[in-house]
Amino acid sequence: MRIYQSEIRIKTKKSYDFIDITEKVENEVRKSKIDNGIIFLNSLHNTACMIIQENDETIFEDMKKLFDRILPLNEKYNHSYEGSLNATAHLKSNLLSQSLTLPIKNGKIVLGTWQRIIFVELFEPREREVFITIMGE
Amino acid sequence: MRIYQSEIRIKTKKSYDFIDITEKVENEVRKSKIDNGIIFLNSLHNTACMIIQENDETIFEDMKKLFDRILPLNEKYNHSYEGSLNATAHLKSNLLSQSLTLPIKNGKIVLGTWQRIIFVELFEPREREVFITIMGE
Amino acid sequence: MRIYQSEIRIKTKKSYDFIDITEKVENEVRKSKIDNGIIFLNSLHNTACMIIQENDETIFEDMKKLFDRILPLNEKYNHSYEGSLNATAHLKSNLLSQSLTLPIKNGKIVLGTWQRIIFVELFEPREREVFITIMGE
Repeated sequence: MRIYQSEIRIKTKKSYDFIDITEKVENEVRKSKIDNGIIFLNSLHNTACMIIQENDETIFEDMKKLFDRILPLNEKYNHSYEGSLNATAHLKSNLLSQSLTLPIKNGKIVLGTWQRIIFVELFEPREREVFITIMGE
Repeated sequence: MRIYQSEIRIKTKKSYDFIDITEKVENEVRKSKIDNGIIFLNSLHNTACMIIQENDETIFEDMKKLFDRILPLNEKYNHSYEGSLNATAHLKSNLLSQSLTLPIKNGKIVLGTWQRIIFVELFEPREREVFITIMGE
Repeated sequence: MRIYQSEIRIKTKKSYDFIDITEKVENEVRKSKIDNGIIFLNSLHNTACMIIQENDETIFEDMKKLFDRILPLNEKYNHSYEGSLNATAHLKSNLLSQSLTLPIKNGKIVLGTWQRIIFVELFEPREREVFITIMGE
């Protein structure tokens, strides 16, 4: 049983940037040379997160609309010093997920047919970091 | 330290089918012969997920009402080609959780008194798969 | 590769008590003597959970407002025998997260600059338990 640790960097370009990082993450699995085990992904941010989802723009548009409905940007927020987009991004990342755990089997990440690893920028264009841990053999 | 991998299958019968899979999952722990460690459960779907919750129909009814309020089915969704139930199921599974990690101690899954592992069908009757990984000794 | 298991206890004082347990959890990492690996935190409750967030009261106030909007306390809930605060706490803990997984590197939990481990009481003052598992070397 071994542990592999690394970091990947993601340059986001806008709010609600949904970036498919599956290949980037699979590349870390290859580098780890771990064939069976678990990969842990941790976003080191409170306003950017990760989801498992189909890489389909229409789903991402629906997610934005959902958040606009339950966390309207023209509302007054207490965490106001960086604006409503920032205030609501903090809450959205807790409603979604700042970390993912996915199985690895025969050197590949086990995902359903339509599942991809999507990094989600909830605030504004940034250089983001995801910490990677792979445990297995 | 060892790794055990398997899959369980769940036949869902309707939308908002809340199925207590605790015993099915405990059976995998027994088969793994791992006494102390972690069990990882990963739903291989974007419209079906898992929660830790009391197995109580009234809570599940309240959850349905919550989703009907924040994701009304008579709303227009961009991801429309399989209908509103499908479009909203994609978002609900990201708001809930497609994966669970639970501790194992002395051969048993550590759960609070009222906690059960509940598989949640968010779309329509389907044959669903949960990938199981158990790591420990 | 080793496994360390323990439990921490948290005394909550009110509904929406947001308690920074980062130091308490770091203390467990020190006790485990595991330098590189993963720490798993599992809340053994359905009405109390954990989030990764900035320890900032204004964010917690905004979270309360969000929940008051989507899960109003003056609404009628089916899970009614302990009142609306209890009924909605069950749903809030599924929308947030009853478990966290965080990497450990060089004996320290890897967190972003503004990330803290926050325990969230969603029901009423209670003695709460978080099960800790640390795996690594």
